[in-house]
Amino acid sequence: MVDSDGLYPRDRLDRARQAAATAGIDVLLLTPGADLRYLTGYAALPLERLTCLAVPASGEPVLVVPELERPAALASPAARLGIDIVGVGETGDAYATVADRVRAALGREPARVAVADRMWAEQEMRFRSALPAAEHQLAGEVMRRLRIRKTVAEVAALRRAGEAIDRVHERIGEWLRPGRTEREVGRDIAQAILDEGHAAVNFVIVGSGPNGASPHHDTGSRTIEAGDPVVVDIGGTTADGYCSDETRTYVVGTPPRDFADYYAVLQEAQEAACAAVRPGVSAASIDRAARQVIDAAGYGAYFVHRTGHGIGLEEHEDPYVVDGNEELLAPGMCFSIEPGIYLPGRHGARIEDIVAVTDDGVDRLNVVRRDLVTL
Amino acid sequence: MVDSDGLYPRDRLDRARQAAATAGIDVLLLTPGADLRYLTGYAALPLERLTCLAVPASGEPVLVVPELERPAALASPAARLGIDIVGVGETGDAYATVADRVRAALGREPARVAVADRMWAEQEMRFRSALPAAEHQLAGEVMRRLRIRKTVAEVAALRRAGEAIDRVHERIGEWLRPGRTEREVGRDIAQAILDEGHAAVNFVIVGSGPNGASPHHDTGSRTIEAGDPVVVDIGGTTADGYCSDETRTYVVGTPPRDFADYYAVLQEAQEAACAAVRPGVSAASIDRAARQVIDAAGYGAYFVHRTGHGIGLEEHEDPYVVDGNEELLAPGMCFSIEPGIYLPGRHGARIEDIVAVTDDGVDRLNVVRRDLVTL
Repeated sequence: MVDSDGLYPRDRLDRARQAAATAGIDVLLLTPGADLRYLTGYAALPLERLTCLAVPASGEPVLVVPELERPAALASPAARLGIDIVGVGETGDAYATVADRVRAALGREPARVAVADRMWAEQEMRFRSALPAAEHQLAGEVMRRLRIRKTVAEVAALRRAGEAIDRVHERIGEWLRPGRTEREVGRDIAQAILDEGHAAVNFVIVGSGPNGASPHHDTGSRTIEAGDPVVVDIGGTTADGYCSDETRTYVVGTPPRDFADYYAVLQEAQEAACAAVRPGVSAASIDRAARQVIDAAGYGAYFVHRTGHGIGLEEHEDPYVVDGNEELLAPGMCFSIEPGIYLPGRHGARIEDIVAVTDDGVDRLNVVRRDLVTL
Repeated sequence: MVDSDGLYPRDRLDRARQAAATAGIDVLLLTPGADLRYLTGYAALPLERLTCLAVPASGEPVLVVPELERPAALASPAARLGIDIVGVGETGDAYATVADRVRAALGREPARVAVADRMWAEQEMRFRSALPAAEHQLAGEVMRRLRIRKTVAEVAALRRAGEAIDRVHERIGEWLRPGRTEREVGRDIAQAILDEGHAAVNFVIVGSGPNGASPHHDTGSRTIEAGDPVVVDIGGTTADGYCSDETRTYVVGTPPRDFADYYAVLQEAQEAACAAVRPGVSAASIDRAARQVIDAAGYGAYFVHRTGHGIGLEEHEDPYVVDGNEELLAPGMCFSIEPGIYLPGRHGARIEDIVAVTDDGVDRLNVVRRDLVTL
């Protein structure tokens, strides 16, 4: 919970309130997750007991927490922002508490409520009961506009996360060897993700040989063999709350004959997509930039997923770099560029970096070498 | 994903379908989480792309997954159960796919849909659009009745989880020493949770000295000092999907004068609550059994939380051992018994075990010593 470099400025709450009011929303109701953390710095736990930040379009926000969590909330940046933090005991009705505070702040019954996109259905339905006159909609349309363009402090936080995961990739040779299982290698990598500067491991994919052809394989019991290409896609969350995500593909020994050919195509595609990033072009155009190179080389049928996803307080968030997403890139947007080529039953490769859109181009937040590394 | 001892029998799907039909529900819509895993064995990831098991009241269930996740779903017990697994590509509409399959299975438009209690609001709202004629309710009322009483295989899985976390507590002396920070100790414990037989670390609480008086403190930068009582509450998830959760309180050196007094009260309260467990008594009565001992000794104001929570595929689930919960205990119910005494600003203690209700009493799934351990 570091706030030293202005990651959680007070003006976010004001901007969220104004955006809600402009959208005709009476109150934002935000349960634990990225929106709540973005506005308050509080990394609330997703417990069965309700935690909810209510941001009314007028009046002061309130953070309702289980009484047990009140010390943690008070120790978070939320308290320093001056947010009123209200504890509810084991047998209290937290939904009624939120509803009462919202009515008091507005001076009336709310007519339109916007809930966090990932609020649980059971919570959303209880809010429908506690505020029966209100129409419900998603808060995401307001919150995504605030969150999609990162501040200088946020890009710096993502860069620190990127540097941390770069350091793990630089050490892969310590663990990735023939005769070890994917799971053994994955466990060592998970420890290194923590050691190199993350507070949590988000995922560890070690896809060796044919497992590398399944893009979301995690780790398995397969023993790595000499000559295997191995896809290593790893990410974590730093103490700041920001995520890393980086893929490199390694070869243990001499690769299969055709592997080096399509790896070169893939590297070219990834470079082309990164080079296409600048303000004013669409997210879909970045996807096309990667896909064109792979299509032209005859591997189009083997690139079976989108090119990337936004990243920040969530591992996957807006903007998505996918066909059909005509959202225009703007300075501060941060996302992955991760084309892949997968030959079912044989092997696969993916190269992934996080990039930030700058005022006139792109800033790459991962810098570890992208050419084929033979271990 | 172990299915060797019948953790994911096919009859669960049939029982869920029958229970839904009895409740007048046309279809259960279950997104990644414990309900989906309970019915299929598939440990689906909570991705932005929809994964949804649809269990219609008539006709066959279907599991709709992102095309990328299809290999993982096919490798899970879900495929062995004969569930139709349908992949949806990057630009497909997974909600429409689910809706079409539900209509085809029922032979009509569904009128009542029950969604997973923890389905995201954004998913729930998209299902409202995809199935506009349907009333929505929570699937929890159906699913909780199936899940609350564990089978023999499930109790065995919880016992294995309990034995794994017992082994970690037996090793605490390796790491908990004056001069080390809570965070350093917590990291070692997290590694041991994995080493001793879990697939994931769920949480690590190391509350030393005054931090032990905050029940949900996790770990911090505080350096452990000689004479500190230290609350260590830890849990993980095994490869089977079942959770562990166990608290012991340790003393590093000679404890404060009053600490040993209230620790003895706490131990007596925890024993009394465990001894009260048998079929036919209410969950609330177990809470009272613990609270009466602590009240009688004059520490009632310092026992600030419920006595326990159910456990299984979720760390916290029904039944909750809390004042007001008049649900009657029945064989196969499994939950924590974890009274605590917390002196704000000074120190605290908690003792927690998982227990299973048997045909005539209680089976304790944690067995490591509960008297005060001085390191």
